[in-house]
Amino acid sequence: MELLENRILKDGVVLPGSIVKVGGFLNHQIDVRLLLEMGKEVSRLFSGDGVTKLLTVEASGIAIATAFGAVMDVPVLFAKKHGTSNLSGDMLCARTHSYTHNTEYNMIVEKQYLKPCDRVLIVDDFLANGAALNSLIDIVNQAGASLAGCAIAIEKGFQGGGDRLREKGIRVESLALIDSIDGGNIRFRR
Amino acid sequence: MELLENRILKDGVVLPGSIVKVGGFLNHQIDVRLLLEMGKEVSRLFSGDGVTKLLTVEASGIAIATAFGAVMDVPVLFAKKHGTSNLSGDMLCARTHSYTHNTEYNMIVEKQYLKPCDRVLIVDDFLANGAALNSLIDIVNQAGASLAGCAIAIEKGFQGGGDRLREKGIRVESLALIDSIDGGNIRFRR
Repeated sequence: MELLENRILKDGVVLPGSIVKVGGFLNHQIDVRLLLEMGKEVSRLFSGDGVTKLLTVEASGIAIATAFGAVMDVPVLFAKKHGTSNLSGDMLCARTHSYTHNTEYNMIVEKQYLKPCDRVLIVDDFLANGAALNSLIDIVNQAGASLAGCAIAIEKGFQGGGDRLREKGIRVESLALIDSIDGGNIRFRR
Repeated sequence: MELLENRILKDGVVLPGSIVKVGGFLNHQIDVRLLLEMGKEVSRLFSGDGVTKLLTVEASGIAIATAFGAVMDVPVLFAKKHGTSNLSGDMLCARTHSYTHNTEYNMIVEKQYLKPCDRVLIVDDFLANGAALNSLIDIVNQAGASLAGCAIAIEKGFQGGGDRLREKGIRVESLALIDSIDGGNIRFRR
């Protein structure tokens, strides 16, 4: 998606460890107008697929999923990263590893909010090695729901997580797919 | 706001400690359509006030702020609850206490995203004793920005945080203001 790619080139900052900092518009300060345009593209890509729920994980996925949900008129469900006093009842849980923070955590979703009749589109801001997506897919499978696919803002293609999911037959649509970062220069896949 | 009050009565669950669980529509599963209606009401309340930025704190404030931002066409900024490897540069920081989780944490905002020229509306899902709001107001003051007020989904009036802020002359608009919870019965302020 050219609008997002141009914004990454304009306002993204490459940090050591191939981290692309997009806090100016995507996951700290949020350009809601941009997110709604991204939502229109995702809505177009998955139109006719009968999506009933968007699933993401706190915290930075929530803004994107909410904007997509506004465009698609679909409710959002976000996995929590640890148990809180406000969670109760049966839980769906998957262990995952954060590449950014180098920590392990549990993703938790209340079972009552994800049903076998749901058609789920997973949404996230970043896809790198795929650890978070694999855990969200695990949760969808535990619920017995069906998976429409994954809609990602920025995929770091050189970390391989997206292509491994595609090889398994899972539909992964990334609005910006970065193939390489050399000396701070970002190159997108065509 | 009658739509939200009725939804709380229908789908909210009162837990011990006067916790109102609204995970079915507000802060775990998110009814985006409801949030957009709430955004319309907040937009009406603060119309003509020149709001340039919505400020909230991760995680559960993000969905509401994003929906409000979509309606008001204003960017969103969310405070992070601890340092991450993706934050850099000068920070605005305020220490706060979580009533729900009974923990202390730092709220952090990158200084470059909040300027003296900003007119800020603080947004959050809950207002109880006001600890989170006070920290967000502290951050607005540190930035030298001006405060339009606070837009809250659910205020627990019996915990006093909202009225203490109003006594200081801060505009606090709560879409649902709970005055008491007796034996699981929720009573709203009229």
